[in-house]
Amino acid sequence: MYSQKVRVAVNGYGVIGKRIADAVVAQEDMELVGVVDISSDWRIKVAVQKGYPVFASDSEAADLMRIAGIPLAGTLDDLLKRVDVVADATPKKVASSNLEKYRAAGVKSIFQGGEKHSLTGHSFVAQANYETALGRDTTRVVSCNTTSIVRTLGALKSAGILKKARGVLVRRATDPWESDHSGVMNTVVPEKDIPSHQGPDAQTVIPDLDVITIAVKAAHTTSHLHSWSVQLTRSASRDEVLEAFRKAPRIAFLRMDEGMVALNSTLEMMSDLGRPRGDMWEVGLWEDNLTVQDDELFYNYQVYNQAIVVPETIDAIRALTGIEKDGMKSIARTDQALGLVHMFVENTKSL
Amino acid sequence: MYSQKVRVAVNGYGVIGKRIADAVVAQEDMELVGVVDISSDWRIKVAVQKGYPVFASDSEAADLMRIAGIPLAGTLDDLLKRVDVVADATPKKVASSNLEKYRAAGVKSIFQGGEKHSLTGHSFVAQANYETALGRDTTRVVSCNTTSIVRTLGALKSAGILKKARGVLVRRATDPWESDHSGVMNTVVPEKDIPSHQGPDAQTVIPDLDVITIAVKAAHTTSHLHSWSVQLTRSASRDEVLEAFRKAPRIAFLRMDEGMVALNSTLEMMSDLGRPRGDMWEVGLWEDNLTVQDDELFYNYQVYNQAIVVPETIDAIRALTGIEKDGMKSIARTDQALGLVHMFVENTKSL
Amino acid sequence: MYSQKVRVAVNGYGVIGKRIADAVVAQEDMELVGVVDISSDWRIKVAVQKGYPVFASDSEAADLMRIAGIPLAGTLDDLLKRVDVVADATPKKVASSNLEKYRAAGVKSIFQGGEKHSLTGHSFVAQANYETALGRDTTRVVSCNTTSIVRTLGALKSAGILKKARGVLVRRATDPWESDHSGVMNTVVPEKDIPSHQGPDAQTVIPDLDVITIAVKAAHTTSHLHSWSVQLTRSASRDEVLEAFRKAPRIAFLRMDEGMVALNSTLEMMSDLGRPRGDMWEVGLWEDNLTVQDDELFYNYQVYNQAIVVPETIDAIRALTGIEKDGMKSIARTDQALGLVHMFVENTKSL
Amino acid sequence: MYSQKVRVAVNGYGVIGKRIADAVVAQEDMELVGVVDISSDWRIKVAVQKGYPVFASDSEAADLMRIAGIPLAGTLDDLLKRVDVVADATPKKVASSNLEKYRAAGVKSIFQGGEKHSLTGHSFVAQANYETALGRDTTRVVSCNTTSIVRTLGALKSAGILKKARGVLVRRATDPWESDHSGVMNTVVPEKDIPSHQGPDAQTVIPDLDVITIAVKAAHTTSHLHSWSVQLTRSASRDEVLEAFRKAPRIAFLRMDEGMVALNSTLEMMSDLGRPRGDMWEVGLWEDNLTVQDDELFYNYQVYNQAIVVPETIDAIRALTGIEKDGMKSIARTDQALGLVHMFVENTKSL
Repeated sequence: MYSQKVRVAVNGYGVIGKRIADAVVAQEDMELVGVVDISSDWRIKVAVQKGYPVFASDSEAADLMRIAGIPLAGTLDDLLKRVDVVADATPKKVASSNLEKYRAAGVKSIFQGGEKHSLTGHSFVAQANYETALGRDTTRVVSCNTTSIVRTLGALKSAGILKKARGVLVRRATDPWESDHSGVMNTVVPEKDIPSHQGPDAQTVIPDLDVITIAVKAAHTTSHLHSWSVQLTRSASRDEVLEAFRKAPRIAFLRMDEGMVALNSTLEMMSDLGRPRGDMWEVGLWEDNLTVQDDELFYNYQVYNQAIVVPETIDAIRALTGIEKDGMKSIARTDQALGLVHMFVENTKSL
Repeated sequence: MYSQKVRVAVNGYGVIGKRIADAVVAQEDMELVGVVDISSDWRIKVAVQKGYPVFASDSEAADLMRIAGIPLAGTLDDLLKRVDVVADATPKKVASSNLEKYRAAGVKSIFQGGEKHSLTGHSFVAQANYETALGRDTTRVVSCNTTSIVRTLGALKSAGILKKARGVLVRRATDPWESDHSGVMNTVVPEKDIPSHQGPDAQTVIPDLDVITIAVKAAHTTSHLHSWSVQLTRSASRDEVLEAFRKAPRIAFLRMDEGMVALNSTLEMMSDLGRPRGDMWEVGLWEDNLTVQDDELFYNYQVYNQAIVVPETIDAIRALTGIEKDGMKSIARTDQALGLVHMFVENTKSL
Repeated sequence: MYSQKVRVAVNGYGVIGKRIADAVVAQEDMELVGVVDISSDWRIKVAVQKGYPVFASDSEAADLMRIAGIPLAGTLDDLLKRVDVVADATPKKVASSNLEKYRAAGVKSIFQGGEKHSLTGHSFVAQANYETALGRDTTRVVSCNTTSIVRTLGALKSAGILKKARGVLVRRATDPWESDHSGVMNTVVPEKDIPSHQGPDAQTVIPDLDVITIAVKAAHTTSHLHSWSVQLTRSASRDEVLEAFRKAPRIAFLRMDEGMVALNSTLEMMSDLGRPRGDMWEVGLWEDNLTVQDDELFYNYQVYNQAIVVPETIDAIRALTGIEKDGMKSIARTDQALGLVHMFVENTKSL
Repeated sequence: MYSQKVRVAVNGYGVIGKRIADAVVAQEDMELVGVVDISSDWRIKVAVQKGYPVFASDSEAADLMRIAGIPLAGTLDDLLKRVDVVADATPKKVASSNLEKYRAAGVKSIFQGGEKHSLTGHSFVAQANYETALGRDTTRVVSCNTTSIVRTLGALKSAGILKKARGVLVRRATDPWESDHSGVMNTVVPEKDIPSHQGPDAQTVIPDLDVITIAVKAAHTTSHLHSWSVQLTRSASRDEVLEAFRKAPRIAFLRMDEGMVALNSTLEMMSDLGRPRGDMWEVGLWEDNLTVQDDELFYNYQVYNQAIVVPETIDAIRALTGIEKDGMKSIARTDQALGLVHMFVENTKSL
């Protein structure tokens, strides 16, 4: 049904939306028809400079944006007539009311992890349940933290060694660009409810996952850090566990003995590697830090919340439109186009 | 042997030492004979203003301190002749060489948690092993984190419901007063080795404790946060678990529904309660946040690293000198003198 | 008219209000009749524990507070019948509507620096214009930054050497206790308008002050830092300038060569000195850092925003009620009761 | 003398060095022959992956690097035989001893701003004194802060309206990648000496500049912020001042009304614009924030310390080797190759 490239709209040109837009442009089988927003400041002007057709959310927003000098190609309604699928990256309160609009326009839709599973009835992580999304009209990509959990625990589960997992999520308090009454200063804020929502969220993708998380918010903006205690089904060796993680897509190893010692050294490395915006789409898991004691496994990894869900969104586009039936092939195509790796620099230390 | 008050010296008037000095002064059965340091800036001048006799570490330090105008009562060697016990709060590299000096002077000694168990052959947490310290010539009080672990897991163990505990320690990166190339900025740094040292350290006090910790350093100075996943011996109710914690000394409850939502709100409360230096000596455990699921227990607590070991040090003075044979009585006396509580404000919410 | 102690109410038991309450209690010629708030969490419970009669803002708030178990002595309207003056420390949007209520109750009122000069028609800094407040029904104490400007530039003006002053205010982004979407992280935010409001605000107290400030918000919570470039009327020596500052009340010297090297070392010192909440009411001006070059003067000082306006508020109570006609005497009485100093520790270094 | 491209070595592959290397590669008239370092972790491995020939500082370093698996093309001494000029970006203590080595090898050299003016006898800012560097054997590029001062005050001086300038520098405490006892936490640290060194440093480039700065270190890593109070020679309009800045190279305007409100929003914009490492080489000066009052001028600007000196270093290569005699032509060539701009996004707001 798609002899041409899949025609994609991105609704919401924020932290995630602008990255989805760039990722779509990088795919040979997709076309970015337009991006939608309501803002009129430098952020949307960069989209204009990149040559992305800009659409206003509605006519009210259109008026404001025109006054601000933003050249518009139309409104969201105009754009929906010209695309096959929309990646929705609007703020939480807006997104749920958009689904009706997308359905009415006959456009498939992908929502982000801030939305509830019940909005779409389907939650997506490419390497876990790609095939269940084939041909659906809508899905939601799970949150950054949940994506990382599904990737990693999914790998252990596939290796047949996962019994149950208990994790502590040390979350960044706000994104690096924010400066308006945002975040926290010089403190740590434990989340009110235990378990936090990532466990149940992961179960919308892998239903029988035995996982409970405690989440806290800490005084940094660089990424989330996860610390995991995993009960294995039996004793295992480090090598066996590392091999399970190696087989899975989108997990890359960090090594402390290589100087990758903290969240910010990873980000410096991403910058040096020329990653767009210094992004990391992979789960960054510390390899030499990982420890196995009998049938228990302990490890830390880094979740770059601003980008980790972007490759998932690209694969969701293929699944919903059905232009690729095989999840692993879609993953390979996306990863090649974006430049995901298993190893950031050549590892010359012994395991 | 101590018809008079026990005569105490504090060697090292830093973050911990200055607090030990004040705590000794607050005890009716102890006398602070002097404090020892090498610095000559405002920090030691405050000690002078408080009327604490100040001794120099050695004659070199004495010269420098005199030049700076610090009135000295002598050197450490002079002070050792006039005391029964010394609380050593010197930096790590210095402390171990001090033990010989103390022994040679026939003075009992208490070291802090930065020292290894092997230095003294004995590690101390009042509510866990007070009696094993009676009459010894030396002991070490375990670190702030380890102290909190022994108090809390010890309480669960005493209640007969502890099987094993896995914790993540989100540590403050440096102390609030530091400004010289200290700490970390906008990042989280996982510790290189898993398990971190607190588990084995706790086992020097309660040998059969099954505990493993992962530690990370985060971008705040306010206190440490601990997140725990505990495997119980059987299913239990929240009430049962809370009761076990309530029975233990030196654990106080925080409640999120009372506005105690983060490390820094606790510290604001300590200030408002008129605590000296806004200190908290208790483990601050979030009561309404604590969750039990079948035979698993999850909770968060706060460790005020600058003061939590101070009451332990006071009890160690009594144990070593034997002026109190009963640990619980020493604890009661210390807690009463300092003002430790079980509840910071009256709890008018239901459990 | 006040043979008894002046009867005082504090409306708003927040960062400033709770400190005003304590300061009133410390004065021999004042009586704290009650504090008013709408909150029902730990913050007001500490007031209850301290024995402060608590009043609800209105009957709606009273209902909520009673449900939460806060013992109430009445509402604001009840309290206003029993006091001579109210120190208003409510949030900005609330305060301006309160003035009518106070006037209707025949109660004198003091507002804080967040309110505009036009609300009361009078702005107050004790050492600058105490006498102009005598017998007025209302005044506002200027903001923390403005208070520091009036104290310091006022001192130079009194010494006859001030021509004009240009300052940069590096402000703390939020208060230490805040953790709810508050502050900024890892950035500096320049204020949109130059000059910032402190210059014009200072001119409501000293009208002919030639002062312009640029303000920025930085990533700390500890206090504000001011950096000043002052054009003198003529060449002067460091000694002459320091003498001008020494003569003024409520300016105390910090010395870098004593280890007072940063905002947080000052706060550590306040804690060690046993200041309530580790507060500093004085402007903390770095003495050895101050530099004179010909007829230009450069210096840095620290403004502890949570407390600096408290002694001013106490003096305003005396001025409005007229129980003390002489500003310097009121200042002396307040400073003695609270414990303000000119020198934190004995200065043994040469000037 | 240089019919071929100028052959360049970069000694020190750190924050500045790695950027100089990339900038040299971007120039058509230069060739990066090799980079030199002593490290063997991920940072130098990225250089290897980029295809940069890596040389060890000396044979000791070579041994360690080889053990770590870093492929080496030789040592510094080998490299010096094959280049015309070396850009030295080594740590302060190392750099000064390198000059003799470079001279002995007959290689021209450029040092960074951490070195003293006396090391080379010449200090360089392309738009201020390019021609004075022609044919010299060595120069130093001034520091990031000083570079920004020379560019901006130089522009005002060229417009004939600068009398004197007084600035406050709010410096970042450490670089974004650092995590080892680096930086400060939750405080501001004023520098001990006033004036700070940037004024005298700027005078090594523009000798009669009347400039005094106060510097403080704040709790962020994102860039430095400068706040300036400038005394003009006469009254001027905003437009006149803005025009002076517009005429100068390497100053770009930020606008708060476009959402560029803080240091971190600028960096987000650089990322979105696809700048390598999200770098900004220009002084980022807030246009709508700039204020003129009679004959006084006030403004804020941002100094991206990790990159601002890189274009200067490129121009210094041309000046020392003499391959371009005209400073403005070298600047144009460098700026075009790197992609410097005067305006980041199209300004659709009125001035």
